[in-house]
Amino acid sequence: MAQTSFTLHAQDGQARTGVISTPRGEIRTPAFMPVGTAATVKGMMPESVRETGADILLGNTYHLMLRPGAERIDRLGGLHKFMNWERPILTDSGGFQVMSLSDLRKLTEEGVTFKSHIDGSKHHLTPERSMEIQKLLGSDIVMAFDECPALPADRKRIADSMRLSMRWAQRSRDSFGDRPGHMLFGIMQGGLEQDLREESATALIDIGFDGYAVGGLAVGEGQEAMFGCLDYAPGFLPEDKPRYLMGVGKPDDIVGAVKRGIDMMDCVLPSRSGRTGQAWTRRGQINIKNARHAEDPRPLDENCTCPACRNYSRAYLHHVFKSNEMIAGMLLTWHNLHYFQQIMQEMRDAIAAGTFDAWEAEFHAQRAQGDIEPL
Amino acid sequence: MAQTSFTLHAQDGQARTGVISTPRGEIRTPAFMPVGTAATVKGMMPESVRETGADILLGNTYHLMLRPGAERIDRLGGLHKFMNWERPILTDSGGFQVMSLSDLRKLTEEGVTFKSHIDGSKHHLTPERSMEIQKLLGSDIVMAFDECPALPADRKRIADSMRLSMRWAQRSRDSFGDRPGHMLFGIMQGGLEQDLREESATALIDIGFDGYAVGGLAVGEGQEAMFGCLDYAPGFLPEDKPRYLMGVGKPDDIVGAVKRGIDMMDCVLPSRSGRTGQAWTRRGQINIKNARHAEDPRPLDENCTCPACRNYSRAYLHHVFKSNEMIAGMLLTWHNLHYFQQIMQEMRDAIAAGTFDAWEAEFHAQRAQGDIEPL
Ligand SMILES: [Zn+2]
Ligand SMILES: [Zn+2]
Repeated sequence: MAQTSFTLHAQDGQARTGVISTPRGEIRTPAFMPVGTAATVKGMMPESVRETGADILLGNTYHLMLRPGAERIDRLGGLHKFMNWERPILTDSGGFQVMSLSDLRKLTEEGVTFKSHIDGSKHHLTPERSMEIQKLLGSDIVMAFDECPALPADRKRIADSMRLSMRWAQRSRDSFGDRPGHMLFGIMQGGLEQDLREESATALIDIGFDGYAVGGLAVGEGQEAMFGCLDYAPGFLPEDKPRYLMGVGKPDDIVGAVKRGIDMMDCVLPSRSGRTGQAWTRRGQINIKNARHAEDPRPLDENCTCPACRNYSRAYLHHVFKSNEMIAGMLLTWHNLHYFQQIMQEMRDAIAAGTFDAWEAEFHAQRAQGDIEPL
Repeated sequence: MAQTSFTLHAQDGQARTGVISTPRGEIRTPAFMPVGTAATVKGMMPESVRETGADILLGNTYHLMLRPGAERIDRLGGLHKFMNWERPILTDSGGFQVMSLSDLRKLTEEGVTFKSHIDGSKHHLTPERSMEIQKLLGSDIVMAFDECPALPADRKRIADSMRLSMRWAQRSRDSFGDRPGHMLFGIMQGGLEQDLREESATALIDIGFDGYAVGGLAVGEGQEAMFGCLDYAPGFLPEDKPRYLMGVGKPDDIVGAVKRGIDMMDCVLPSRSGRTGQAWTRRGQINIKNARHAEDPRPLDENCTCPACRNYSRAYLHHVFKSNEMIAGMLLTWHNLHYFQQIMQEMRDAIAAGTFDAWEAEFHAQRAQGDIEPL
């Protein structure tokens, strides 16, 4: 049976580029993973997501276990077939979203009991059940089950939570077992406490994983604090395994994370922004609903090759947003995902060429210009 | 400058097949025109609409004049460029939707004054202004401005309205002028009164148009009454010009209209149904939100080649509708438009082969079976 591997091709400063190989295809790193929460990247056909350059999608265990249910997806042939995406899928463990979305949570050493935000039904999630669900979904990269406290939290809360997550990491590893062709990632916790991050990393390495996530960031601490943590946290992790920063982020967050040695990221931002009329371009953020675009015949970004920029004016995008047409979110999501993947490709190329610093300077210089002047 | 033409290739009973040629492309008849109300066929990229087999779209003068405005669309290069559809577009005159959607209408010999349903702004629409708007939009097939009373209405109301529409038809013709490459269609009125339909047809033929619509049907009179009118109304119109039945309809309405000599139709049904979870197949109508589909691994229609049927199970479509995901409406709209175009292609082939009656019998026999049995 085919195995998985991670091969680093080049490093420039702390930034790295390489390839994760899985039986379902290669993932070029650094990689941005669009989020397909409920078995769809909102507003996109999966073929279109692939066209933007995505090698892998993220699926949410919490949402899928509640609707349509992991056992049902298994009976229907697994998540890949269900959602018509045959390339790799990473699933989160459900832990984070239980904490952020469900009602009446009760946390014990064993796991967490909660009520569905959809229908109020009662559910129990443990490291063992999370592994089982992710196996039923057919996930290629499975995340260990963890607990993540919202920041700010006091040091004792962060330490206790991290140590619980490390015990759950061991149970996740034991429960996952030996599944050739599938990877299990551990999740480092410890908030913004350097010694707790190191303790967490050491515990995960002792258990042994196919990749390591930096969890517990992008939860409200701000970019400066996040980068402060990323200045040391990746260094606690093995060089020869992929490093995944969960839930990040805005384009400048992504660039700063890659600069600090992160290989994988995911975020709902490009699709969520797209549905509300926010476009990300190399010159910053655009609110297409703003009246200045109402009669602007120019594309969002004249250098962008996505369908929204190739085929439509800002005036059209403005019109369809004002009219609440579905194509509005479809086009802007496509553009945003395309732009995010464009950044990733440019960073991979720059790291391979040893020109990451120059690329980063140009990235920030273009953003500093702001959007094109109104006509 | 390129001209337009209508060539009949075959007739089988009253059913006809042919081609309308325009500088922007050919329209195979009988033709079904998807509706792109506000410069988009809801839930579809225009490339996808073309993939379903559509040769021509319908745009709504009423909606576009209010938002974003005809003059603005003109300044942006016309409706084709604005909405990224380079093939033919037919625009209605605005008259019907003023009557059905706007507030505080006031009708005079001159035209109609009304308030926008969007922002309450006041507008005036006349035959001359309707011709001007449709020219600004760049419409390939322009509809004469008419008035259409809701049925039931008494004979005097229908007669008065029809005669007003005939005077407006003359003013539309005068105002349209000579525009090579563009067609102007007159609209027959007269409700369900055979002599009024004949009077209307005679008046229109005296004026002279490039095509003739049967207006004032599909407004609540029921299929039997509509077919009763279509048993004689197309016969009052010239054989060598296209005949367009406005706002029709369900698949069996369309088949019955083609059988009675109609060449063109339009309806929001396939896209509107798609967004609410109603699928049309050769075996009738399916409500994909029904619980019986929740775990059904089969496609909507195993013989359909649309992406919804090729790539997804009924269970997936059920799931994304239950989850209010955008892809739900996107996929079901695609299927419905594909199915409607599939019927049109099969009817064109059957008419050319002289086998329309057999095709129609099979069409009704398959529908009588109903949906496939639950598993
Ligand atoms: Zn773009
Ligand atoms: Zn289909």
